[in-house]
Amino acid sequence: MPPLTAQQLSLNTATLGPGASLRDAVRGCLKYGFGGIAPWRDKLAEVGLAPACRLIRDAGLQVSGLCRGGMFPAADRAAREKNRADNLRAIEEAAALEAACLVLVVGGLPAGSKDLIGARQQVEEGIAEMLAPARAAGVRLAIEPLHPMYAGDRACVNTLAQALALCERLGPEVGIAADVYHTWWDPDVIPQLQRACRAQRLLAFHLSDWLVPTQHLLTDRGMMGDGVIDLPRLCQSVADAGYRGLYEVEIFSADHWWRQPVDVTLSTLLQRLPMLNSKEDHNENR
Amino acid sequence: MPPLTAQQLSLNTATLGPGASLRDAVRGCLKYGFGGIAPWRDKLAEVGLAPACRLIRDAGLQVSGLCRGGMFPAADRAAREKNRADNLRAIEEAAALEAACLVLVVGGLPAGSKDLIGARQQVEEGIAEMLAPARAAGVRLAIEPLHPMYAGDRACVNTLAQALALCERLGPEVGIAADVYHTWWDPDVIPQLQRACRAQRLLAFHLSDWLVPTQHLLTDRGMMGDGVIDLPRLCQSVADAGYRGLYEVEIFSADHWWRQPVDVTLSTLLQRLPMLNSKEDHNENR
Repeated sequence: MPPLTAQQLSLNTATLGPGASLRDAVRGCLKYGFGGIAPWRDKLAEVGLAPACRLIRDAGLQVSGLCRGGMFPAADRAAREKNRADNLRAIEEAAALEAACLVLVVGGLPAGSKDLIGARQQVEEGIAEMLAPARAAGVRLAIEPLHPMYAGDRACVNTLAQALALCERLGPEVGIAADVYHTWWDPDVIPQLQRACRAQRLLAFHLSDWLVPTQHLLTDRGMMGDGVIDLPRLCQSVADAGYRGLYEVEIFSADHWWRQPVDVTLSTLLQRLPMLNSKEDHNENR
Repeated sequence: MPPLTAQQLSLNTATLGPGASLRDAVRGCLKYGFGGIAPWRDKLAEVGLAPACRLIRDAGLQVSGLCRGGMFPAADRAAREKNRADNLRAIEEAAALEAACLVLVVGGLPAGSKDLIGARQQVEEGIAEMLAPARAAGVRLAIEPLHPMYAGDRACVNTLAQALALCERLGPEVGIAADVYHTWWDPDVIPQLQRACRAQRLLAFHLSDWLVPTQHLLTDRGMMGDGVIDLPRLCQSVADAGYRGLYEVEIFSADHWWRQPVDVTLSTLLQRLPMLNSKEDHNENR
């Protein structure tokens, strides 16, 4: 695998923290030569969809994914309908952005429920309802399995194998967004990533690192190289299996990176590129 | 499944917090009619092994498990040797206590390492070295898969399927300790628990609950009924599959239960017994 270049990176807007605007993120991508961007919908809403699309297109950036649709399990029909309408809007936004995929964070247990099986059923039904509109809009849906520590409140799809089984039942419109933070621990991570690539279902690949110790379940992700994930091994495995999409950097780091100037975060990020596929670094760390 | 009785419960000493002694735990078990106890080794050390054995035997308590051996992956031979010697002592202590099993928390990545595959190899080699001494002492070893959020620093065995595959490679001396807190999210939790029961490898079953939101990765476990785990479903599934061991309560709760008087914790715990296998509660929570 040749060393990754900035052109192969996509900047997920969450990496710059809630304070940064879409304009800040686009400016950063241009300054540091990123090939793509992955906006969160709240950042689009701040500027409006059409201006956001212009901003990104004028910068020549690919959209590696739109974050996010999903949140399917609901306690009642009204909430389910509200989710469905929001997911249809998300499909339209992804189409307008020509995004490589709409990332689906599927949701956890409805309030007061302990029925994980029922929640997973609602997820499958919810995605099934999105297939026709997604197909019509030319948008691919990327199920993102989240770390099992989010099973209760954010996503009841928690492994690559579970997400890929869902994809196979649902059809070709659906694939996965694989995030090393959520999946690195999985004894099957490599074969499942390769299975996704072979099936043309690896629609997005997200990078960050797992810090030891982790201080907060949501906002203590690390910069690549600062944690314990064997990133060269994971990056190599998807490259070898034929993944040709962008490598999206998504770092939720309230106490550290979100407090840094954009220039510090993005320049550090580029400095870490070599270690993403350097066997030396890998071996040093054994 | 008939309602669980206090006699079917075992009190893991960690549930009372670091401030409680083995004597406090035994006293609590007697007062509330618990059938068993699961001591941590530091609590044994405080009173000495022989007095601890007498204390527990005189109270007529079964030992559902000794916590803990393991921590196999090491950065160098010296550390590995130190672990091995400590694990041999743990086997002797488990034998003296006539414990149903010695719980193995297998350990995560050695300092500076990102090689999860290598760590898992060290775990298998480390357990293999314990087989003969365990057999000689009549002690069964219970691999406890920990939640994936502990893969980096505490246990690189993170699913029931992974632990059971290890057991099958290692032999009849080895089984698993299944903890609902670590495994409830797993799409395969029920079939894997049943597989463990059928193979006579379910050596311990631990109870607590997963709180939403969880504030701390280590010490924010909930009392049964206060979280989102479908406990009736999990308890029923092991009972149906033939599990006849004790139901061990292990709640790490620094900010709440560890601050309560022992009587409050233990009486609350008994009040929650009915919900552990009441379908009503289960359905209410759907």
